[in-house]
Amino acid sequence: MQTVVVLGAGNVASHLIKALIQNTYQVKQIYNRTLSKAEELGELYGISATNTASEIEKADLYLIASSDQAIAEIAEKIPETDGMIVHTSGAMPLTEIKSGVRRGVIYPLQTLSKGKNIAYDDMPFFIEAETAEDEALLHTFVRKISHKVDILDSEKRLKIHMAAVWVNNFSNLMFQVGEKFCIENELPFESLKPLIKETAAKLEEMSPYEAQTGPAKRADQETIKKHLKIIKDPDLKKVYELLSQLITKIHA
Amino acid sequence: MQTVVVLGAGNVASHLIKALIQNTYQVKQIYNRTLSKAEELGELYGISATNTASEIEKADLYLIASSDQAIAEIAEKIPETDGMIVHTSGAMPLTEIKSGVRRGVIYPLQTLSKGKNIAYDDMPFFIEAETAEDEALLHTFVRKISHKVDILDSEKRLKIHMAAVWVNNFSNLMFQVGEKFCIENELPFESLKPLIKETAAKLEEMSPYEAQTGPAKRADQETIKKHLKIIKDPDLKKVYELLSQLITKIHA
Repeated sequence: MQTVVVLGAGNVASHLIKALIQNTYQVKQIYNRTLSKAEELGELYGISATNTASEIEKADLYLIASSDQAIAEIAEKIPETDGMIVHTSGAMPLTEIKSGVRRGVIYPLQTLSKGKNIAYDDMPFFIEAETAEDEALLHTFVRKISHKVDILDSEKRLKIHMAAVWVNNFSNLMFQVGEKFCIENELPFESLKPLIKETAAKLEEMSPYEAQTGPAKRADQETIKKHLKIIKDPDLKKVYELLSQLITKIHA
Repeated sequence: MQTVVVLGAGNVASHLIKALIQNTYQVKQIYNRTLSKAEELGELYGISATNTASEIEKADLYLIASSDQAIAEIAEKIPETDGMIVHTSGAMPLTEIKSGVRRGVIYPLQTLSKGKNIAYDDMPFFIEAETAEDEALLHTFVRKISHKVDILDSEKRLKIHMAAVWVNNFSNLMFQVGEKFCIENELPFESLKPLIKETAAKLEEMSPYEAQTGPAKRADQETIKKHLKIIKDPDLKKVYELLSQLITKIHA
């Protein structure tokens, strides 16, 4: 597999196109419902763009990097092909793509924001296909991009996607709440960055259980009460209480 | 200020002793209620240990690195001195130390676990003292350990301590929940580590608001429902719902 059509023009599409080109794959075309977005992305790499399904070119691989809700519809629109059609979603089963085609999944387990550079060669990818042959082809294809490629079925992919929401989406929310308190109280959020860095770095040497510190771990109700007293937002107060209780319970 | 007596023998004490010795301060003695813990720590550096308050030696600085609840009691026990008595707590006011002595605070804003090495020279320290003279002395003292020293009063210190709980304690809990799901479903937690690393690394280039990705940000109720369906623990289900709602609200 050498030639690729990318369907979608968001964060994931933009990073995958970059990774494909870095690894000498030929991205023939970008398809996107909003043409201007496909054109903007295509211009960066000299790739043609279209929003017309009948114009979608022949390729070895059709990479759908759209919203989850659009996968089925986009897959339907691809003109008849011998190529493989894969989506990139953690939460959608392989069967989200219509049957009767060679279908598969390439799921990059990473938080991808436009404009944020990231190394692709140690990014974990989980792949799935319907036949052993296609699975092997996908493995070889992705292996050129990253040395971390594993085969995972749709059910387990949803579960690791859910775990990813906890470790990334929710911890990033915690960073945001920390920043909010800093801004409100004229404190330097910069001072929290070494702490954030160390929070992640600790896991190279110990488990999250061992890494835990702080008042809730020590069941230090005095400090917890003091903190609750200075949290004004009722939602955040509730979250603080709930998370503290969980930590205390785990370390009891 | 050159000579120090450290009171306490836990995580914070152990790291501060190391930082002091690395920066050529003389740690004369470790005082701790449980003598064996003080001795164990003292042996690493050839420092004498005691659990008898009347034996506490004279020093320029008495560094109380105990639990918050023990600070007042330990400060009371220190034999009459011209030296400064400081505690290291984020949540306790300077006045937790009895009046009538030169009192202060040296608060290291970091997650410190025993046995986990960390660079002290860019660790943020917040200091407080009662006189400008003592403040300057403390500043000079800590500045030798780290280039990130700021003066902060007790009220603001509690607030940054609270923000630290969010960015560290609570995000570490998110990592732990992620690990738990991996173990339960025989998925490799290792695969989540690049994601965790990138979650922290993103903040070097963008704000947590800009860094946010995932279903809750996109208000993708389908995926949220799928995830909730596979979370069995009712506490975690509640946390997932609450945090997703918060993210969706922020990005609405």
